[in-house]
Amino acid sequence: MEKVHDFKWEKGMSVKSLADRIGRVGFQGAELARASNIIVKMKKEGTKIFFTFTSNMVTSGLRGFFAQMIKLKMADIIVTTIGGLEEDFMKAIGEKFIIGDFDMDDVELYEKGVNRVGNLFIRNESYARFEDMIQPLLQKFYEKKKTWPVSELLKEIGLTLNDEDSILYQAAKNNVPIFCPAITDGAFGFHLFMFQQKHPDFVVDVVKDFANILFSTSHDERKGIISLGGGVSKHHAIFSCLLNGGLNYAVYMTTAHHTSGSMSGATTKEAKSWGKIKDDADAATVIGDVSITFPIAMINALETLCKEGILKC
Amino acid sequence: MEKVHDFKWEKGMSVKSLADRIGRVGFQGAELARASNIIVKMKKEGTKIFFTFTSNMVTSGLRGFFAQMIKLKMADIIVTTIGGLEEDFMKAIGEKFIIGDFDMDDVELYEKGVNRVGNLFIRNESYARFEDMIQPLLQKFYEKKKTWPVSELLKEIGLTLNDEDSILYQAAKNNVPIFCPAITDGAFGFHLFMFQQKHPDFVVDVVKDFANILFSTSHDERKGIISLGGGVSKHHAIFSCLLNGGLNYAVYMTTAHHTSGSMSGATTKEAKSWGKIKDDADAATVIGDVSITFPIAMINALETLCKEGILKC
Amino acid sequence: MEKVHDFKWEKGMSVKSLADRIGRVGFQGAELARASNIIVKMKKEGTKIFFTFTSNMVTSGLRGFFAQMIKLKMADIIVTTIGGLEEDFMKAIGEKFIIGDFDMDDVELYEKGVNRVGNLFIRNESYARFEDMIQPLLQKFYEKKKTWPVSELLKEIGLTLNDEDSILYQAAKNNVPIFCPAITDGAFGFHLFMFQQKHPDFVVDVVKDFANILFSTSHDERKGIISLGGGVSKHHAIFSCLLNGGLNYAVYMTTAHHTSGSMSGATTKEAKSWGKIKDDADAATVIGDVSITFPIAMINALETLCKEGILKC
Amino acid sequence: MEKVHDFKWEKGMSVKSLADRIGRVGFQGAELARASNIIVKMKKEGTKIFFTFTSNMVTSGLRGFFAQMIKLKMADIIVTTIGGLEEDFMKAIGEKFIIGDFDMDDVELYEKGVNRVGNLFIRNESYARFEDMIQPLLQKFYEKKKTWPVSELLKEIGLTLNDEDSILYQAAKNNVPIFCPAITDGAFGFHLFMFQQKHPDFVVDVVKDFANILFSTSHDERKGIISLGGGVSKHHAIFSCLLNGGLNYAVYMTTAHHTSGSMSGATTKEAKSWGKIKDDADAATVIGDVSITFPIAMINALETLCKEGILKC
Repeated sequence: MEKVHDFKWEKGMSVKSLADRIGRVGFQGAELARASNIIVKMKKEGTKIFFTFTSNMVTSGLRGFFAQMIKLKMADIIVTTIGGLEEDFMKAIGEKFIIGDFDMDDVELYEKGVNRVGNLFIRNESYARFEDMIQPLLQKFYEKKKTWPVSELLKEIGLTLNDEDSILYQAAKNNVPIFCPAITDGAFGFHLFMFQQKHPDFVVDVVKDFANILFSTSHDERKGIISLGGGVSKHHAIFSCLLNGGLNYAVYMTTAHHTSGSMSGATTKEAKSWGKIKDDADAATVIGDVSITFPIAMINALETLCKEGILKC
Repeated sequence: MEKVHDFKWEKGMSVKSLADRIGRVGFQGAELARASNIIVKMKKEGTKIFFTFTSNMVTSGLRGFFAQMIKLKMADIIVTTIGGLEEDFMKAIGEKFIIGDFDMDDVELYEKGVNRVGNLFIRNESYARFEDMIQPLLQKFYEKKKTWPVSELLKEIGLTLNDEDSILYQAAKNNVPIFCPAITDGAFGFHLFMFQQKHPDFVVDVVKDFANILFSTSHDERKGIISLGGGVSKHHAIFSCLLNGGLNYAVYMTTAHHTSGSMSGATTKEAKSWGKIKDDADAATVIGDVSITFPIAMINALETLCKEGILKC
Repeated sequence: MEKVHDFKWEKGMSVKSLADRIGRVGFQGAELARASNIIVKMKKEGTKIFFTFTSNMVTSGLRGFFAQMIKLKMADIIVTTIGGLEEDFMKAIGEKFIIGDFDMDDVELYEKGVNRVGNLFIRNESYARFEDMIQPLLQKFYEKKKTWPVSELLKEIGLTLNDEDSILYQAAKNNVPIFCPAITDGAFGFHLFMFQQKHPDFVVDVVKDFANILFSTSHDERKGIISLGGGVSKHHAIFSCLLNGGLNYAVYMTTAHHTSGSMSGATTKEAKSWGKIKDDADAATVIGDVSITFPIAMINALETLCKEGILKC
Repeated sequence: MEKVHDFKWEKGMSVKSLADRIGRVGFQGAELARASNIIVKMKKEGTKIFFTFTSNMVTSGLRGFFAQMIKLKMADIIVTTIGGLEEDFMKAIGEKFIIGDFDMDDVELYEKGVNRVGNLFIRNESYARFEDMIQPLLQKFYEKKKTWPVSELLKEIGLTLNDEDSILYQAAKNNVPIFCPAITDGAFGFHLFMFQQKHPDFVVDVVKDFANILFSTSHDERKGIISLGGGVSKHHAIFSCLLNGGLNYAVYMTTAHHTSGSMSGATTKEAKSWGKIKDDADAATVIGDVSITFPIAMINALETLCKEGILKC
């Protein structure tokens, strides 16, 4: 077994070196290093990688990193919630979000037309611009066909964008499907509703998209997950893998704890009782804010994969 | 301002008395008492009450209490995830879940066909029985019509049950709509998929259900929420209220903290920046396991409403 | 194994009934019921009960309940931090604390001479009155002897009070020692320092008090702990029990999680690796705010012990 | 106000670059960057830096980094608990700790003489070697004088060691006092007790050490704190600064939340109501596992201070 090593700073040290060292510090540092190693293994074995995240992570600047991951072929299938995709779109058309503060006068923010997500701010105008652009797009799609599985709709939207840092754009360009089972739960849901009011035969087919995620992999294929945060996006990916025989690799990164019995806090260990994760799978759960833990774990993996010639970089 | 009172036990003391006293203890006890008072106010003013919860709470024994709340007219609109509704159905047809332990050998559980949710166990057989019963129901519904908004489908299912302690049953019987935006995210999603494979014109219309939740209230109506846990169910209810001018009352009960910027941890204060909650709304956030905090807060409210003759009991 | 039971409200229901029912709900409710049962067993077997809590719980109204527990012989040895004992003293001389709010303008509070502890407020005057009374007491004690083990000093202070709801008073009256290893970490530390400046031969002997806690029990005696919160008070009690062969019963109630490797979050399971808790001990860890969880668990135990004639009540 | 920037990986990127970028991602990443900037400001202005940490962080490999900080003059005064100092000593005499797993059979570990701290393991032998070495040292110190303030005792112990990575060693060598108000709360307390049994006039004077921490700074001096974790070490440092007019800078890094009213979770904002932190102080609270957050924040600060010629490196 590995010994605890005293952490030391060296001038100019790299993230790779940091990750190696906190891996031998213990506690969540050690779990983070395990997660990073599992990501490397996944990729080296040609595993199909499910990548899930919650909307707030797109509100944050991780959005560009997620797009970069897609471009680097580190994510084969994405599952998320619609709020983040709306914001990805806003950013792709030039909207900017602001770093504010957790302690603000929220009534005052409201009066200024500023919406708060933790310590980030989004202006009402960003939502208005999203609305202005989305209705004509829906009209265009509707003219192609009347019934749309969610992932096809999201791909079409991605194809209209032109931003290297956009998740929707990179996913569309790289043929990475984005699944979003709760498609109506956000401003986009409202826009779909308004469109359907005028076009009652317009259908968003969520059941068909279940078929799509199910057939996106198979029992024989090796399957892995990198799940950031919890909720529907985490569960949907794991559940579709369960139906395909279970995951070979799993990395959960979250702030939720297992003690409440929630999906968000459910550990990789619990997942084995369900067969969501195979009994001999490599799995790690890292507790902490993903804005900090994920860049380190993923950069460490990318550097290794790059050095070993598995990633082109 | 209220003074801190020394808590004292009295032999045979009631939950009402407990709640009154922990309300003057401080910390989350005080927040719980505020939450309870807000629930009383909501009801007394004839507020339309949105009630949201995550699936794990139905896995737990709170399910019967939720059904009782519906019967007592303490919930006008329900928003949740499908996993819990599946389990409500299983329990309604006689399946039993077991209180186990958080620390178990999960591989061993898997081999025994036992699935773990925190410290609760569900047997594979319960899922098998659900499957056996749901396919014929879908056939029956399909024969009525081809396109189903989610809430209508759930009501039809509820009408087939006969269990006073069932959420689906009580909701159907009392005309309380259940919204479930991520309808495919669970075993039921798989059954819908299988049914659609054989009946390609079968459609579950989530956009239509967005209209349904939107029109379930109005700008003029007073609106309140009791939200247990986070995720899609919490967001969906709040968002539909935002579109109707914002909530007058809000009670959030959760284990998630606001520091990660997630929806699950988002406070009632943050919600005011969005107009999700009106600037002068009465709002409380209680941090803690809902299996403990919710019964106390709600029983306290029920006892008061009962005493004041607002509830029939 | 026990089945999950649907929770139901009954008009006028008692705390005992609530506790029984949430014990069959699952998640932390089930853990709370286990904790309660362990407390009953401890008492029935004549176990020596170590009771530990952090200072903030005395700031809250739990203080009166702790005093009541001592009076009812539910705590044989107390370990805590000094901040809480200072506030117990302040309350015993008539000072009142206020229930405020977590979100306050703290600079404004400062200017008003109000100190905030979560959602509770303590005025500067309360500290000033404590100071005025403690210096003459130290003078009196000093005249008796020059060297004081901590627990003897605290007992002397308790004997000067006259408040049924005071921890110091009830402990002194009932010969329950209070150990406080970090005796200087608070206003009392400052007062001891000022006194020693004038009386350099005045000594507070913490090493002697280690002997006192060590000899307060033995290898042969059955030992149990009820530990609220974490930190030094939790560790000190457990450690002295480890030196006496380990605990037979352990109840931990806290908001801290095990994932950071901290003492506050350390579980009863981890404690077994150290021999702090015997391998066959009955142990439960309840995660949640003690202002809510502890009253339920303890009242449930008291009602049972009362009914079975073990407590006089 | 700063805009959210899309995070991007660049091959070979440094920790400095990582920290800059996560500072513009939002959520705890942004708070971490604020904390890092405050550390830089503290040092540039010649602030007296109080550095506090809990024992588990010394169990982890952060111990070597803490020693390095002392050597680099980034910590002027240390406050901690004794468990960590015991382990610092063990490591200094060659004992090794192991990185294990959070999920272990703790009874089996016990039988093997292995003690678990989260996912780290310490063998019983390490404690035995500590015991063997500490008694002769106490004898030597006792021969010098009979009464020892805690910090003097710890300095003497540090002077007997010879390990660049040791906190005790670097602190002694660099005249950085270590305060440890709960000196008896650990194996060292037991050894002090055994020594006092044979030498009843041996006194550890905690009150004198309160004078020492109080006089270690002054009202006029600028004061800052870097506090890792909570409990007594955090409170003691803050309290002694309060008595000296309050802190000018404060960085709290912890996993505890403010909702329970505990000292561990108390925010820098709450501290302002007490005057613990001045009303115009620069302050940041970072929520997360210190094994990950602290190296990034501190390395970022060190790189900046190094580049600006403030640190010799």
